[in-house]
Amino acid sequence: MIGVGVVGCGYWGPNLVRNFSALDQCELKAICDANPDQLKPVAKRFPAAAAYNRFEDLIADPGVDAVAICTPVGTHYGLASAALAAGKHVLVEKPLTDSVETSERLVEQAEQAGLVLAVDHTFVYSGAVQKIRSIIDSGTLGDPLYIDSVRINLGLFQSDINVIWDLAPHDLSVIQHLIGRRPTWVSAIGATHYGTLESQAYVTLQYESTFIAHLHVNWLAPVKLRSTVIGGSKKMIVYDDLAPSEKIRVYEKGVTMNADHAQRQRALVDYRVGDMYAPYIEKHEPLGQVCADFVDAILNDRATLTDGVAGLEVVRILEAAQQSIRKNGERIRIGPNGD
Amino acid sequence: MIGVGVVGCGYWGPNLVRNFSALDQCELKAICDANPDQLKPVAKRFPAAAAYNRFEDLIADPGVDAVAICTPVGTHYGLASAALAAGKHVLVEKPLTDSVETSERLVEQAEQAGLVLAVDHTFVYSGAVQKIRSIIDSGTLGDPLYIDSVRINLGLFQSDINVIWDLAPHDLSVIQHLIGRRPTWVSAIGATHYGTLESQAYVTLQYESTFIAHLHVNWLAPVKLRSTVIGGSKKMIVYDDLAPSEKIRVYEKGVTMNADHAQRQRALVDYRVGDMYAPYIEKHEPLGQVCADFVDAILNDRATLTDGVAGLEVVRILEAAQQSIRKNGERIRIGPNGD
Amino acid sequence: MIGVGVVGCGYWGPNLVRNFSALDQCELKAICDANPDQLKPVAKRFPAAAAYNRFEDLIADPGVDAVAICTPVGTHYGLASAALAAGKHVLVEKPLTDSVETSERLVEQAEQAGLVLAVDHTFVYSGAVQKIRSIIDSGTLGDPLYIDSVRINLGLFQSDINVIWDLAPHDLSVIQHLIGRRPTWVSAIGATHYGTLESQAYVTLQYESTFIAHLHVNWLAPVKLRSTVIGGSKKMIVYDDLAPSEKIRVYEKGVTMNADHAQRQRALVDYRVGDMYAPYIEKHEPLGQVCADFVDAILNDRATLTDGVAGLEVVRILEAAQQSIRKNGERIRIGPNGD
Amino acid sequence: MIGVGVVGCGYWGPNLVRNFSALDQCELKAICDANPDQLKPVAKRFPAAAAYNRFEDLIADPGVDAVAICTPVGTHYGLASAALAAGKHVLVEKPLTDSVETSERLVEQAEQAGLVLAVDHTFVYSGAVQKIRSIIDSGTLGDPLYIDSVRINLGLFQSDINVIWDLAPHDLSVIQHLIGRRPTWVSAIGATHYGTLESQAYVTLQYESTFIAHLHVNWLAPVKLRSTVIGGSKKMIVYDDLAPSEKIRVYEKGVTMNADHAQRQRALVDYRVGDMYAPYIEKHEPLGQVCADFVDAILNDRATLTDGVAGLEVVRILEAAQQSIRKNGERIRIGPNGD
Repeated sequence: MIGVGVVGCGYWGPNLVRNFSALDQCELKAICDANPDQLKPVAKRFPAAAAYNRFEDLIADPGVDAVAICTPVGTHYGLASAALAAGKHVLVEKPLTDSVETSERLVEQAEQAGLVLAVDHTFVYSGAVQKIRSIIDSGTLGDPLYIDSVRINLGLFQSDINVIWDLAPHDLSVIQHLIGRRPTWVSAIGATHYGTLESQAYVTLQYESTFIAHLHVNWLAPVKLRSTVIGGSKKMIVYDDLAPSEKIRVYEKGVTMNADHAQRQRALVDYRVGDMYAPYIEKHEPLGQVCADFVDAILNDRATLTDGVAGLEVVRILEAAQQSIRKNGERIRIGPNGD
Repeated sequence: MIGVGVVGCGYWGPNLVRNFSALDQCELKAICDANPDQLKPVAKRFPAAAAYNRFEDLIADPGVDAVAICTPVGTHYGLASAALAAGKHVLVEKPLTDSVETSERLVEQAEQAGLVLAVDHTFVYSGAVQKIRSIIDSGTLGDPLYIDSVRINLGLFQSDINVIWDLAPHDLSVIQHLIGRRPTWVSAIGATHYGTLESQAYVTLQYESTFIAHLHVNWLAPVKLRSTVIGGSKKMIVYDDLAPSEKIRVYEKGVTMNADHAQRQRALVDYRVGDMYAPYIEKHEPLGQVCADFVDAILNDRATLTDGVAGLEVVRILEAAQQSIRKNGERIRIGPNGD
Repeated sequence: MIGVGVVGCGYWGPNLVRNFSALDQCELKAICDANPDQLKPVAKRFPAAAAYNRFEDLIADPGVDAVAICTPVGTHYGLASAALAAGKHVLVEKPLTDSVETSERLVEQAEQAGLVLAVDHTFVYSGAVQKIRSIIDSGTLGDPLYIDSVRINLGLFQSDINVIWDLAPHDLSVIQHLIGRRPTWVSAIGATHYGTLESQAYVTLQYESTFIAHLHVNWLAPVKLRSTVIGGSKKMIVYDDLAPSEKIRVYEKGVTMNADHAQRQRALVDYRVGDMYAPYIEKHEPLGQVCADFVDAILNDRATLTDGVAGLEVVRILEAAQQSIRKNGERIRIGPNGD
Repeated sequence: MIGVGVVGCGYWGPNLVRNFSALDQCELKAICDANPDQLKPVAKRFPAAAAYNRFEDLIADPGVDAVAICTPVGTHYGLASAALAAGKHVLVEKPLTDSVETSERLVEQAEQAGLVLAVDHTFVYSGAVQKIRSIIDSGTLGDPLYIDSVRINLGLFQSDINVIWDLAPHDLSVIQHLIGRRPTWVSAIGATHYGTLESQAYVTLQYESTFIAHLHVNWLAPVKLRSTVIGGSKKMIVYDDLAPSEKIRVYEKGVTMNADHAQRQRALVDYRVGDMYAPYIEKHEPLGQVCADFVDAILNDRATLTDGVAGLEVVRILEAAQQSIRKNGERIRIGPNGD
């Protein structure tokens, strides 16, 4: 039985608390938040867990084997490093840290200590993304040609990080999981409509092949959209995470270069030119899988699906995108071998 | 009564033929196509019009006052220039020509000859775009913050031009019409999945202000999408050209930087945070308006809504985007004053 | 080459004129409308056809072998009967006539004269309905359990017939085509919101088996809907005629009576429980097929897909529904053997 | 502080448990289920509540002031009556009981005992239905002309009650809340596709005026739909409870009887003819409001929004619908004054 402590009871922390408390293989031992207004309601709902104001007290608790960190990004490295130093396994809310340097250090520290370091890249654990991965692995899609991701939101501004660090980790972790390779170049263009932080950005990932990935992240949108198109040489997938029913639609590719005249005419007037298939996606809360994978990885001394290294790869792209924005969209080389 | 001749009876030409023939203020005098298989069926449906195989014959026809050119882009300059030289008013299918240089020459030639030069930027004439323009003009939207346009298609490859020259003129002409200023920098990234022409591209327009415009054009998509989001400081518009009913939806902007905690929570779980309004858009064929505006401009010696200068501005951006792709996305300065 | 005359140049007639004129195997010989304002614009577009004000003149035209009748329902019988008497093949806009008695007479008259009598049940000719028919015929659907059809409109009132006679022929002809049996009982409830004619009605068809069909027709709706659900013992089909892309969606049936607890829970929270498949439907104008089938039936001395007998069966149900409304929804026996 | 006990820990009970436990003005004192497999997991999550196997023990618990009953419909009357006899306030899951007779008795018993009797008609408490009610009350809709409701499901069969008793209470309670009058006649037609209980039914409510309401309830549908159209003399509302974003859309009524020719043509080709407005609906869990209203009604000695009388009115319609099905759709008089 793994004893778990959760740090940070703001928006996301209570979701982790709830999910860990529902798992059989672990026990929610402690929660922690410096702000009593955030700590109190969670403590009331989970009276069996110790409620700490100070992080030091939580990692000093001998019943706590593993720590989940749901605090502002700027604090991730300090807290995670201290928890590892105290011999705790660590799960960090995305992104892992706010720089490649600190992410690398954390990965190394965990490895040397023989502790599990995991990142909560929730979407990777969703039924939809796992289904897409299986479609790609089965060869049904053919060669992946591009991924185009749109994640736009309702004007919910963050005050500590820009829109790329806030929203892009979701898409980047999914792309990394689906493609499994580091991009060679990253470029990005941002716009700062209010204050000093970018609230809208376009990020492009280029690879050694013609495969390309592109993200639109935006805090200043009228509607919430979370849509990803994955183009393949045989099929294409539209993944709409907010669709109540058909989250994944798999399409025939349609006519191509050698289309005859009749096919071309048809493509001009039609909405699509082949059958569509929408596989059933079982409904489960992906965060429950994140927590279960973390606990199981500890028990079996193995890495999680989105471990520290996966988190570092995402931070690598985030940092390069940030750098590209400062250089007016100049492309930044980060791969393929990290050179 | 203006005599009109239409050159090119492939995909788009017959639509112009049909629309000109339905207008009261003009008469369809002639059609022309070098390919008899394309010419014949149109000639059969419009027996009153002379059917020419050679363009020279069409512009030599004294009954033809105005020529509409619906041929491959590479031929636009030559044909339009010859028609102007023969004293004909000219309407050219988008884009105006395949280079800034030839477009500039054409604009100058028409001006010196005192002839109408128009570009068929069809979407600018649509009820939806005209409605959006009136919403912006009324101040309801507030300051435009960004335009994000997606125009993706069913794998319908062109063999003479890449996807930017094929699809982006639509979005660029709409953006030009709505914003009315030349961007300062253009950058673009393309991907060539088959053959030698880009089949997918992202184009970014940056302006002196923080306003930004971004286009995704793609021939290799599983579904047809034509969607534009226009973010404003007061309202936001989602324009979905393929929606059967609500083509334009106008949203409240939603919570912003100074949102209190409750508002932020609401934005995290909600799909939107204010009312939505979908104005009625009268259904008409925009191409009919294009043709009527062209004829009326000739009769009244005035410029059309999308005249040669508007066409040149679009070509300016297309050429810069092409240049940026060749330079790996480096941004190309084109404005604000053309310097 | 069959000479065709079209009577009635109001809303629907010109569509028939256009489609007949595009066919190779026939020639548009004449058009006719008592109202010169309706006749004139059509005559202008099709100058080769004789334009008659009087129906008598049209059927006296020796070049006219076949007549298409697009006039108010109350005139169908008189005109069609006269045309048959003049030796013309006849295509009547739906519904065939306004009573079972006149429909029966017309069918008999055509049969005795050896002439083709067809009804323009346009939707039966659509790619979508033909696809559904093939899915049923292949056994994929299993036993049909029910058809539920909704056809509601934008407040477009008719002044001569009620909403059942106006809209239900579409759904009834589709149901007849898919199920191929006469219902045993018909019942209907109507509401008269304005004037004296029902503007909203619900019609139920009961059969010898547990199969049931139900229609909602409505002139007073805020949006246009044309949706049909076909439940089968193995699969279910949702047919949305207005969907730009997925007109037909084929679903797994989902859990059933013997579902275990886990399946039941899943069904309670999920939107669907199996895969979905949306076959590609080729886009064509069904009315073109109606015209082509009519002409080909004449040439080959055969019945059309929706012949007089099919039209009579629809009128049989319409009349029974009307009778049921007058009797407050009492069910009226019409089948299965017409007794 | 009101002590609450919840009876029945199957599908719905745990939701009530969770909502009561989150309220400030009450305390979850006890839960009860005869099935230990259902009782146990709830007892584990709420250790402070007593867990009873026998209902008698729960109502004997002096800490329990109010009882919520979430058991099969057939047991509602017995349990509720016993709880009232024991001096407990009672909230019953819909429908109140399985007959008019027992519902009437229960209402009388509660009245004589001076206890609160409430029915959990959850949808009436939803933000969407409350918004529709306020639109009707404000006169914006004009006179209500009809309500058309569709509630179809994923093949989730019940074994104790038919589809009308299972699903129609939702729509009937909403209609009652919006219209506030008893229908004069009820008629219904059902179909039994498997076993002996109707799995699909159509219910019509007729009133003294031309107002009409119609329900389609169905267990055997490929997709889940919960859609209601409310037609008014000035506006029309489409309420789609499953829409992630626009649950309520308010439409202009569109053209009417006196439409001129141009308007009629427009209505024939358009999808709608006026503006549309989708008011923002705040997202909250309606069941939380049900629980809060129940507790507050007890504290303030008042009736709830959906009290016993409201529950009785719904049962009145359900029973009449059942009777009509047995009589092949004959209409059953129940109002307007209960004669």
